[in-house]
Amino acid sequence: MSVTTFLQSLIPAVRVGESGVRNRKGDVTRAAIVESALAMARREGLESLTIGALADQMKMSKSGVFAHFGSREDLQLAVLKDYALRFVDEVLRPAVRRPRGLPRLQALLANWLKLLAREVEQGCLMIGGASEYDDRPGPLQDAMVAIIGGWSAELIRAIDAARENGDLRDDIDARQLAFEIYGLMLAFHQSARLLRAGDSFRRAHTALARLLRDAAAPGSPPLKSKRAAGRPPPVSPTRPPRVHVRRAVSRTRGT
Amino acid sequence: MSVTTFLQSLIPAVRVGESGVRNRKGDVTRAAIVESALAMARREGLESLTIGALADQMKMSKSGVFAHFGSREDLQLAVLKDYALRFVDEVLRPAVRRPRGLPRLQALLANWLKLLAREVEQGCLMIGGASEYDDRPGPLQDAMVAIIGGWSAELIRAIDAARENGDLRDDIDARQLAFEIYGLMLAFHQSARLLRAGDSFRRAHTALARLLRDAAAPGSPPLKSKRAAGRPPPVSPTRPPRVHVRRAVSRTRGT
Repeated sequence: MSVTTFLQSLIPAVRVGESGVRNRKGDVTRAAIVESALAMARREGLESLTIGALADQMKMSKSGVFAHFGSREDLQLAVLKDYALRFVDEVLRPAVRRPRGLPRLQALLANWLKLLAREVEQGCLMIGGASEYDDRPGPLQDAMVAIIGGWSAELIRAIDAARENGDLRDDIDARQLAFEIYGLMLAFHQSARLLRAGDSFRRAHTALARLLRDAAAPGSPPLKSKRAAGRPPPVSPTRPPRVHVRRAVSRTRGT
Repeated sequence: MSVTTFLQSLIPAVRVGESGVRNRKGDVTRAAIVESALAMARREGLESLTIGALADQMKMSKSGVFAHFGSREDLQLAVLKDYALRFVDEVLRPAVRRPRGLPRLQALLANWLKLLAREVEQGCLMIGGASEYDDRPGPLQDAMVAIIGGWSAELIRAIDAARENGDLRDDIDARQLAFEIYGLMLAFHQSARLLRAGDSFRRAHTALARLLRDAAAPGSPPLKSKRAAGRPPPVSPTRPPRVHVRRAVSRTRGT
């Protein structure tokens, strides 16, 4: 699994994000603007990002922000690229240190789920953005497709490697397994972030472990559940859990 | 499975959507406004809905629209409720005609997946809205949580009925199975709508059939795959497939 090639796959779609005025001296300012914009995009969505609002937040002039990004779209693309690089750093890069095959695949899923769990409050820009741009053709949509497509390809690659390593069954369809894994991550994000269901992490963890167990080659060592998804992080205290809504709905239904 | 109780569960959250000026004579106009607003919300998102834009589209005055909805929020809630009712009509109501137990559960999943497939171009307001409102507390978020929570509760109820009927294993955790089914629907929506992957329907269908097969009680009749998800609808021709992006990413990667 090559982090470099994954990143390279992002470059064609996001390089326009760097096409603003280039200014080495301004790199620190530029990074600070992207950081601030990323926080804003997580909160409100990438599409709500405007140079004006960002300039207000940074206490800069609009032309000061424009000096670093030629347009709002360039800024959005830069934010998306920054998010993708952080994702790679937190999910893919540490997994590559694990032995090739099942341990690496398990680490990758564990890191991904843990990142999503940490992001429950802020939101995942890839998941939120996928929904935001699925009907807005243009460079942002292209970048989103390239990033999600690139990430799916890495996942398929890790599954294939585990199969070639003899850890997963020979007849495992890597694309199918990747599709199902992706679904569990989306379900976790929705269940934890919108529904505030306290069992979201456990549900996702259980399902991922079962998927891998069902895919395991006969005679391969039993999967360690600890590795598959890590310990559940504490449920964030900043918003009240919303499980009562679902419970209330179940309770009030008749036959 | 009671359609009525499902609808009742929506009422507390969406009844404010009817709190605008009540005018029996204006019901037809009101329905036309909601229809037009729903089309707009599917395209641009519920949050982008404004009375002004809607009045323009309807060739009405803004005050004309305001006469039917007290506020933008009331209009948004009315649109959401309208969508939920259509969802119930297309997914839940026909399934209730099937025998209780596995046939009903299978019909429910098949109808749901087929509805999502038909909505690939327009987008699903529940899935899009879940992402749109997951970080915007307020009546819209409450309504979204009530609708998705209510729908999850119906799904859990159908799974429980299939288990009680002896079709599914006694140890099946209905909440867990519902979580995994929800994930597959979300994966289908993202894969078909954003990535335009031509195999999305087949992937979701295969995974749903496997979930039910794995959950089947020993000795229960073999599942008919035709029932589980129906025939895949033709891939919509209005946007070009985007599978080449993922393929290109896979092809260019080294080791």
